[in-house]
Amino acid sequence: MEKLKKMVAREALKYIEDGMIVGLGTGSTTAHFIQLLGKLVMEEELEIYGIPTSYQAKLLALESGIPIIDLDEADAIDVAIDGADEVDPDLNLIKGRGAALTMEKIIDYRAGTFIVLVDESKLVDYLGQKMPVPIEVIPAAWRVIKEELEVFNATAELRIAKNKDGPVVTENGNFILDAKFERIEDPLDIEIELNNIPGVVENGIFADIADIVLVGTKEGVKKLER
Amino acid sequence: MEKLKKMVAREALKYIEDGMIVGLGTGSTTAHFIQLLGKLVMEEELEIYGIPTSYQAKLLALESGIPIIDLDEADAIDVAIDGADEVDPDLNLIKGRGAALTMEKIIDYRAGTFIVLVDESKLVDYLGQKMPVPIEVIPAAWRVIKEELEVFNATAELRIAKNKDGPVVTENGNFILDAKFERIEDPLDIEIELNNIPGVVENGIFADIADIVLVGTKEGVKKLER
Repeated sequence: MEKLKKMVAREALKYIEDGMIVGLGTGSTTAHFIQLLGKLVMEEELEIYGIPTSYQAKLLALESGIPIIDLDEADAIDVAIDGADEVDPDLNLIKGRGAALTMEKIIDYRAGTFIVLVDESKLVDYLGQKMPVPIEVIPAAWRVIKEELEVFNATAELRIAKNKDGPVVTENGNFILDAKFERIEDPLDIEIELNNIPGVVENGIFADIADIVLVGTKEGVKKLER
Repeated sequence: MEKLKKMVAREALKYIEDGMIVGLGTGSTTAHFIQLLGKLVMEEELEIYGIPTSYQAKLLALESGIPIIDLDEADAIDVAIDGADEVDPDLNLIKGRGAALTMEKIIDYRAGTFIVLVDESKLVDYLGQKMPVPIEVIPAAWRVIKEELEVFNATAELRIAKNKDGPVVTENGNFILDAKFERIEDPLDIEIELNNIPGVVENGIFADIADIVLVGTKEGVKKLER
């Protein structure tokens, strides 16, 4: 699995050109990409700036020698490279296993080209097939939102932390509800409806924004385009 | 003006019954209500619990002797009493001058009855007539969102604090953009569209949720119902 992730991360380097501003995603596959990008930047003395989607991405970028800037310093994001937890046949995504979904969506959504890196285990027939939808919520509202998700036939659990007692706290100071849907028929509708529940900051459905999905398979990297 | 606000706050007490859980709004009119409610609770020894929408409401409730609980302790909110910056003829609202819009919407939206207290200066022909729409945003995204609001013909300004250098920071750790729209024709559509901009936590359009608006006028309190 690690081998597929590295292979697809290497493939993503082909989309990076000198002078670009690059959104740096979160997760294990993107981590390989950031490390490889750092090497490339150093070896070829490229002028690349990264905009991290999380502390994980920021720390890795710093370690790897990629200069980083804040989103409000950038005039545009040329490319964003990020992972996903599920990818459906229309390239709609579920993201947020790493609890960075809000900053990921802020950055991925604004990228000129949004490229998703996954291994083939992430391809599903429909969203919700394997994974719950992570939903970032204002802490005070977690319980009411958990109850209201029953309207969607979704069963939600407050995400509990490891190496910290109690719930996970996101980098924005919020909680995560992991909502298991039976089957998400229309991802864009559900994405919009979830965002309109008062107290929901953002949700892990990324409908209609991925431009390219690079899939690591045993037969090599497969490129899917919208 | 203070007199009208007090008059309408006193009228709101009629909707409070013993045993209720009451959402406590933010702003100058609601502040009068909280103080009057505190007196009532003490004089009549009522068993009322308040759920505050902000530190302002919480501090006032504590001062006024109203026991408070957290939203995740409550099984239901019977009534929420809150102010508004604009009220249109269909009882759609703009709220958020006090920067508490997110918690206000979390609580007002879930109340069995949501009662709005205003003086007559807040009644408008259409939303956006006088006031900008406050939008709570993740700090990193303020600039991109400000630019994207131009699509709505809205001119947004980052709200600058007083008694603190730099921008206002909300009680959720975020920024406020005040977005001046030309004229908001369909508040519910705009409310939904704004919430779906990645990085927007919540916005100050409260469409279709006010049940009763009590308006302080020189001729007495006028009651508007949806």
